[in-house]
Amino acid sequence: MADEEAVIGVDVGGTKVAAGLVNPQGEIVTDARRPMVADGDAAAGLASVTGAIDALFSANANARESIQGIGICAPGPLDPKTGLVINPPNLKCWRNFPLAAEISRRYGVPVKIDNDANAAALAEVLWGAGRGYKTVFYACIGTGIGTGIIFDGRIYHGRTGAAAEGGHVSIDYQGPVCGCGKRGCIEILAAGPAIARRARAKIAAEPSRGATVVRLAGGSVEAVSSETVGQANAAGDPLAREILLETVELLAVWLGNTVDFLEPDAMIIGGGVMAMLNPFFDQLRERAARHSVNSRCSEIPLLPAHYGADSGIAGGAALCNRT
Amino acid sequence: MADEEAVIGVDVGGTKVAAGLVNPQGEIVTDARRPMVADGDAAAGLASVTGAIDALFSANANARESIQGIGICAPGPLDPKTGLVINPPNLKCWRNFPLAAEISRRYGVPVKIDNDANAAALAEVLWGAGRGYKTVFYACIGTGIGTGIIFDGRIYHGRTGAAAEGGHVSIDYQGPVCGCGKRGCIEILAAGPAIARRARAKIAAEPSRGATVVRLAGGSVEAVSSETVGQANAAGDPLAREILLETVELLAVWLGNTVDFLEPDAMIIGGGVMAMLNPFFDQLRERAARHSVNSRCSEIPLLPAHYGADSGIAGGAALCNRT
Repeated sequence: MADEEAVIGVDVGGTKVAAGLVNPQGEIVTDARRPMVADGDAAAGLASVTGAIDALFSANANARESIQGIGICAPGPLDPKTGLVINPPNLKCWRNFPLAAEISRRYGVPVKIDNDANAAALAEVLWGAGRGYKTVFYACIGTGIGTGIIFDGRIYHGRTGAAAEGGHVSIDYQGPVCGCGKRGCIEILAAGPAIARRARAKIAAEPSRGATVVRLAGGSVEAVSSETVGQANAAGDPLAREILLETVELLAVWLGNTVDFLEPDAMIIGGGVMAMLNPFFDQLRERAARHSVNSRCSEIPLLPAHYGADSGIAGGAALCNRT
Repeated sequence: MADEEAVIGVDVGGTKVAAGLVNPQGEIVTDARRPMVADGDAAAGLASVTGAIDALFSANANARESIQGIGICAPGPLDPKTGLVINPPNLKCWRNFPLAAEISRRYGVPVKIDNDANAAALAEVLWGAGRGYKTVFYACIGTGIGTGIIFDGRIYHGRTGAAAEGGHVSIDYQGPVCGCGKRGCIEILAAGPAIARRARAKIAAEPSRGATVVRLAGGSVEAVSSETVGQANAAGDPLAREILLETVELLAVWLGNTVDFLEPDAMIIGGGVMAMLNPFFDQLRERAARHSVNSRCSEIPLLPAHYGADSGIAGGAALCNRT
């Protein structure tokens, strides 16, 4: 049942599209998912997106007439001002593709696009953990690390829309090379693959300590993932705890830097890795304060994100409200 | 000769106070300097400031009647909203001292205070290298590294006025311990004392390469300073060049991070160390782009600051115009 003021939020990823009808309270009323054909031509990519939106309309007869707008989040680079998808590595179908204009033409409503972390940050401030805060730093920590900055209730885009690439801020300029080419980015140090890599290295060095982690990975060291480490920690495994605490320490350095640079009103952390680090939220807060010169760092709320796997749909919808 | 619209900018440091009459074009018409009594009581500190201002008035008879306001920059922490100097390590005379209110009461004009790098950043945007840019990152690289962020033409203060401590952003979380207690801050890696320290270490390891630097330091390795290194480079010394290029590389990592996080419209660099790095500005620009994921990083203007040693006076004056 569509609310009269409802909007549609669309989350475009490298393998799937999720579209949801979102009410003015930021609640996802209903949603639809479709595979994303990301390595075909531009039309095939577009058809994946309209397929998900059409599926949503099919299941919600009133929605097509009543929706106020469509907001789409996708991996960057893209240009939120012009609505152009520029050249995302995992959306090869689109190169300087006018996604917003194409979708707007098709459905006759205003369409906004933005990158996924920016959009999710806005959803948190409008409807989630960030309500009431003006300047917010948001991070989604999963397979990668995406971040968004909200200033005065609006997404901060920077000069060309490429600001807030906080996952590629380096805290170790001589450290391991990240997929982006830089060294020691927080993403290469502390996202999911880094946790798995560190676990495998520790197990190789001290096999006797790795028994629980390896068992949870089905007996194979190669199969150890960040999820395995999270599960092992939940089961009380000391090695898993050690790895997660090291991850907390790295994230704390990064958040301390963020406070020293930005001193936001609140920091919100979401994503799959953060969910697994939930037991360590107090340590993260305390350690971040140790890694900041700001004497009032510990007063800055460090909050778990409200939205989980649906942050992309909520983010897309948030773009319709304000950008 | 005082301009009718002139303001006074005051630069309060740990050892001296400089006050200047500044016209609406940001030109310092005349100035006066006095020693700062920073380790006495609050009244002695205040008398140092009023001494400099009074000296300025003595030399410019019209100024006292015509000035529109007084802006004061000082080392932080201080609160620009309330005009309170909180507890700067090198201004022990003042602890939660209402500097703005005291000066305003004495001279009967509005008084603003802010930290020195924030104020200098604003002066650059109003009158200097940053004219025409909305979002600007400013850094003053000297004995320490102070930074300021201008958003939309105004100083960005953050939650409590403690934002933009870019000198204490770490790019080497396992690196040397900074005076602030953190490890691997750009200040401990690349400010003047780091250049001198690195020079002395290289000379100790390879005395044959250090001849020119040591000679310029009067024959003593212990007397080698960042200035000596700058002079040796100007004289064509390869060791000095090597040290300055290492410094450029560290600053490039830091500026690359800054672009990835903030993507400003322009970056402005001033201070004594930067003056000595002037021959390497092109390398700094090129290396910063290598250390950024932003494909258009090299388009962001990286500019030498307009103001030099007088940036504090100009900064103070800028506070009267807008904050």
